Amino acid sequence: VSDPDETEIAVIFTSGRTDVDPIGYAAAAARMEELAARQPGYLGIESARSDDGVGITVSYWASEEAAVAWKQHAEHLAVQAEGRERWYDWYRVRVAGVTRRYTYDRAHVASPDDTPG
Amino acid sequence: VSDPDETEIAVIFTSGRTDVDPIGYAAAAARMEELAARQPGYLGIESARSDDGVGITVSYWASEEAAVAWKQHAEHLAVQAEGRERWYDWYRVRVAGVTRRYTYDRAHVASPDDTPG
Repeated sequence: VSDPDETEIAVIFTSGRTDVDPIGYAAAAARMEELAARQPGYLGIESARSDDGVGITVSYWASEEAAVAWKQHAEHLAVQAEGRERWYDWYRVRVAGVTRRYTYDRAHVASPDDTPG
Repeated sequence: VSDPDETEIAVIFTSGRTDVDPIGYAAAAARMEELAARQPGYLGIESARSDDGVGITVSYWASEEAAVAWKQHAEHLAVQAEGRERWYDWYRVRVAGVTRRYTYDRAHVASPDDTPG
């Protein structure tokens, strides 16, 4: 991490969708992204889902406490339960502390910050 | 993590594709997944890409050293360079140590291992 004092917690959520209720699922997913972004310690979110129904969402938090508070947010808990009942065949969640980061952006730099390791 | 002695390093690779060379890209991606799986310390890989071209791949490793060795694998380095030249508009890589994990699987259990926090 560029500033080693700057904690970044990644919550990696990998899931397989059922084919149930795509409209309700999409609405809930959008609502959760919007709600997460308003929580204390929120740093960002990245999400992708393939046509085969496998998706990965990674949310980033300034502390473990912030990540736990979001997991336990009342509206989020209700959506998690609905997810298990209807939307997901399976999911895996991993919580991880970021130790290194590097990026490449064609528009802004010709070469990446290619830190060894 | 279920066994706290069991290190798991997650390498989170988020990227935006150019629209260049989809066939070459798909072949290289498949080859890299196959090659990664044969490296020492490889634990697994998860990947999703949305129709808008944003993708997330997370690979899991038994140690930091294993993750670094894969990053520096000669064939992988060549593909990384080709990725910057042709396939990616941008990417972000984060290396993170997994501290907690829980899962849900409709087929095997009715309720998740819903560890508080």
